[in-house]
Amino acid sequence: MGIVLGGHQYGKAENRLVRIHRESDRHEIHDITVSTTLRGDFEAAYLHGDQSAVLPTDSQKNTAYAFAKEKGLREIEDYALTLARHFVEDVEPVRGARIEVDEFAWERVQVGGEGHDHTWVRRGPEVRTTVVDVEGGSAEVVSGLRDLVLLKSTGSEFAGFMTDRYTTLAETDDRIMATALVAQWRHAARADGSWAGSVDWAKSWSDIRQILLEQYATVHSRALQQTLWEMGRAVLEAHPGITEINLQAPNKHHFAVDLSPFGLENENEVFFAADRPYGLIEATVTRS
Amino acid sequence: MGIVLGGHQYGKAENRLVRIHRESDRHEIHDITVSTTLRGDFEAAYLHGDQSAVLPTDSQKNTAYAFAKEKGLREIEDYALTLARHFVEDVEPVRGARIEVDEFAWERVQVGGEGHDHTWVRRGPEVRTTVVDVEGGSAEVVSGLRDLVLLKSTGSEFAGFMTDRYTTLAETDDRIMATALVAQWRHAARADGSWAGSVDWAKSWSDIRQILLEQYATVHSRALQQTLWEMGRAVLEAHPGITEINLQAPNKHHFAVDLSPFGLENENEVFFAADRPYGLIEATVTRS
Amino acid sequence: MGIVLGGHQYGKAENRLVRIHRESDRHEIHDITVSTTLRGDFEAAYLHGDQSAVLPTDSQKNTAYAFAKEKGLREIEDYALTLARHFVEDVEPVRGARIEVDEFAWERVQVGGEGHDHTWVRRGPEVRTTVVDVEGGSAEVVSGLRDLVLLKSTGSEFAGFMTDRYTTLAETDDRIMATALVAQWRHAARADGSWAGSVDWAKSWSDIRQILLEQYATVHSRALQQTLWEMGRAVLEAHPGITEINLQAPNKHHFAVDLSPFGLENENEVFFAADRPYGLIEATVTRS
Amino acid sequence: MGIVLGGHQYGKAENRLVRIHRESDRHEIHDITVSTTLRGDFEAAYLHGDQSAVLPTDSQKNTAYAFAKEKGLREIEDYALTLARHFVEDVEPVRGARIEVDEFAWERVQVGGEGHDHTWVRRGPEVRTTVVDVEGGSAEVVSGLRDLVLLKSTGSEFAGFMTDRYTTLAETDDRIMATALVAQWRHAARADGSWAGSVDWAKSWSDIRQILLEQYATVHSRALQQTLWEMGRAVLEAHPGITEINLQAPNKHHFAVDLSPFGLENENEVFFAADRPYGLIEATVTRS
Repeated sequence: MGIVLGGHQYGKAENRLVRIHRESDRHEIHDITVSTTLRGDFEAAYLHGDQSAVLPTDSQKNTAYAFAKEKGLREIEDYALTLARHFVEDVEPVRGARIEVDEFAWERVQVGGEGHDHTWVRRGPEVRTTVVDVEGGSAEVVSGLRDLVLLKSTGSEFAGFMTDRYTTLAETDDRIMATALVAQWRHAARADGSWAGSVDWAKSWSDIRQILLEQYATVHSRALQQTLWEMGRAVLEAHPGITEINLQAPNKHHFAVDLSPFGLENENEVFFAADRPYGLIEATVTRS
Repeated sequence: MGIVLGGHQYGKAENRLVRIHRESDRHEIHDITVSTTLRGDFEAAYLHGDQSAVLPTDSQKNTAYAFAKEKGLREIEDYALTLARHFVEDVEPVRGARIEVDEFAWERVQVGGEGHDHTWVRRGPEVRTTVVDVEGGSAEVVSGLRDLVLLKSTGSEFAGFMTDRYTTLAETDDRIMATALVAQWRHAARADGSWAGSVDWAKSWSDIRQILLEQYATVHSRALQQTLWEMGRAVLEAHPGITEINLQAPNKHHFAVDLSPFGLENENEVFFAADRPYGLIEATVTRS
Repeated sequence: MGIVLGGHQYGKAENRLVRIHRESDRHEIHDITVSTTLRGDFEAAYLHGDQSAVLPTDSQKNTAYAFAKEKGLREIEDYALTLARHFVEDVEPVRGARIEVDEFAWERVQVGGEGHDHTWVRRGPEVRTTVVDVEGGSAEVVSGLRDLVLLKSTGSEFAGFMTDRYTTLAETDDRIMATALVAQWRHAARADGSWAGSVDWAKSWSDIRQILLEQYATVHSRALQQTLWEMGRAVLEAHPGITEINLQAPNKHHFAVDLSPFGLENENEVFFAADRPYGLIEATVTRS
Repeated sequence: MGIVLGGHQYGKAENRLVRIHRESDRHEIHDITVSTTLRGDFEAAYLHGDQSAVLPTDSQKNTAYAFAKEKGLREIEDYALTLARHFVEDVEPVRGARIEVDEFAWERVQVGGEGHDHTWVRRGPEVRTTVVDVEGGSAEVVSGLRDLVLLKSTGSEFAGFMTDRYTTLAETDDRIMATALVAQWRHAARADGSWAGSVDWAKSWSDIRQILLEQYATVHSRALQQTLWEMGRAVLEAHPGITEINLQAPNKHHFAVDLSPFGLENENEVFFAADRPYGLIEATVTRS
């Protein structure tokens, strides 16, 4: 029985890139962090220190910046697809490429009631994300978001749960429910493996985000699990082009503070917002 | 020559507190981090371990939560003033109190085009701040903000600067200028030391924030220094009740990437957004 | 085609727990962060908000603390195995449990040349880790470490690499190589599925850590890939009970600063330590 | 009454710099973050955008790197003094300079029982610090440390404290006391304003650090306040060249978990380590 190299990959992580489109005086901004990861036959680099099949991570970084100029950067899914295909098609030893992009949101500064041409203020903490994976001729595209921080001050309960020797939690029919949502949804590939013009990425993203927000607000929640399900179900119902959605939701606990020692009644008005620990609920909603 | 205790203070830092006002179905939320610091004659605790004049930091925490119920929590300046005065007036050994509050912004989730009654999404990363300091009968109130991340893609230059043996920087007449602004402005106290009803804190804060944004956008900047001055000057001109404003602005460098090795011309379109180091410009604008 | 619930799990993340063993005056400390994740048939909670099969994450937290007392906490692998088996065996709806533990290192404060009985100073930033996964009768144990920050100031080169249109990197035969290593190695299970007494976890961990350090120091590196391979190979050679090891190594770039504009020659003496981007090399070394 | 520019300063923050001394095969490493801040008459830059008296922060950065080569970098106090004096003496508009340096600790990797010549592993999280301020001919030197994380599992009580309406805390005669210490001590200047050869910075620093550790361990603490005093007092007693020391100590709360609901008695064995809020105790010990 021998010792062998198993799975391996490499790339350049967290390239911070800002692309300004200045074709007119009304500039546009795209602010991203892009990470590239390549798969292929790089065994010689590990076993013998032979770099002849290794495109430096520095070159990957250069490519990310050059493509933002050459190919443009509007929708992160298009940008990532172009980058991934380049590595797989043009760099001989590369068999697969995974491109991850985070996009940070900016909005125009309001001056005299109008959005300014070339000045922005960061919106956040929310981040739009994509992960594109190209392997040979096929390409997978996942869009999503993270750090979408949500809170509802009523319309959430938690009761009727299982108990064991270690259970001390009281049931509640009214609590704060808060989370920092991570959502990732997979787009159905077209039969020919192409994505060109197939999806209006910006519209798809904002429509799905709006569904997530509305479900969070309007579903009377008997548990975070139920809310996640209703979020995912609603997205898949409204978007036939989405094959599945994965949701990860920390339960950011807000504990009603016991004010009775001070002669005060706390009717769900004053809360301690805890950092750690937190519940963590994860689910995928898919199609059968 | 002896060894003696010099300046000393203590308190409870970073109490995370959420206050829901639910007098009607249309809830209101205030989400803050509050820190309390007390000054007074606590020497015996240091020198002899005698705690008889020391109100536990745990009691300070309890007070912060109890006051959010008893006194309410709408404007952070009012809340901090009430807390500070309580410690100075009601806790015998305390001579001075400093209350720092950070408030995190939430906006109502839009459902069917209307803001939802009890569901919010975090806006950010911007934070509204206050520091209130009460010493005996006098009270100082500083309002402010931090993490107001701004970027302009043109209208900024940097040229004509001093050079020395270690200078390699090229002049530029067009660059990205970006910062994460910290601003703190001091309110003029009334003659009687009172603040009751004297300031519309919310309106004052949002008006000043708007001035900062507009100046950042519209001043053609020959350096971040100049922009800070114009920001501060404009605030003091428009707000006679503000005695001074302090501005701290990291120069978040965005370097235009040299794409010429790839046969591409980068006309201020593609930038590397650097983390560290960063310039740091600080100034106070005051009245003579 | 219907919409259905796919994979799902839930648990309590990042319970901060300190266990003091005080059987004698010479105390012992274990400082951990433990996360529990349960798998099973929790579908009713998602689809109907029915919690009757859901053990609250709060109860999971309580169990983690109670077990630290009841079962003790010495080696994190033993603690995690006990916790995982409890959930799977004693909580009816649970079919699988994954327990992740991070352990923070403390060393005794030296007083008069001897380690103090009950006072420690944090060593770090290095963290010892384990991930235990129990599914029915089988249990997998992975041990590891993260944030092991290493740097060598010579004995590292990078040359002979592939180039393309986007390559500008110069070859180097002498550079700083630095990383913050993440390593995770899998222990071979015994035929009967039991782990009791099978591994001296502490000794195994520190022996493997020492191999990783020595390989990093003594291998003349033609690339980080090669160093990772030699690290993994050496661990598997020396430890027949380890079936595979996964290594993730950010290439923390240290760029030699060009001092020639100042009339100085930088012979690999002065470096800028960059934050982002960074190379990221990942590999598994396994047995055939 | 006019609007005027008040206090102002500028500089380059957080230059990450690694200096390797490689005069022999046994290399030495110094890994620092250095920030420079200049004071002087830079009013024209603010008021008129006139940069002619402004040395770019980029030049300051270059100077920090060049000096690490030209002047060497062994003790951070010497390095900071040299840099500060350069700015004040050689750059005409500069009247004052403040240099802050953080130094990160590395220790040699052990190979075959001996420290390796050119490979290190980060020690941490502790950081050695200095702040040097030069104004005209005078220079102040403060040395210190931060993130010295300490914990004692007994020998600490908290009782006999003041109570008020908001006090619910129980007294304790045995608790965990933990902190992440920040300490800064000021060196007495020599009559001639010179520091050359006046202090063995490395020995002074490690001697003082050892006193802090020993006091933390051996003082039976009736409150964190008392421990801070005893730390500071001991440093000033042993080091006549130190004029004062400032100590900032978060009280990192470790709460004994109530295990009685599970039929278990927790005799100060199992603790929840809280993140926030935390007590914050600050004191200066000085000479009369």
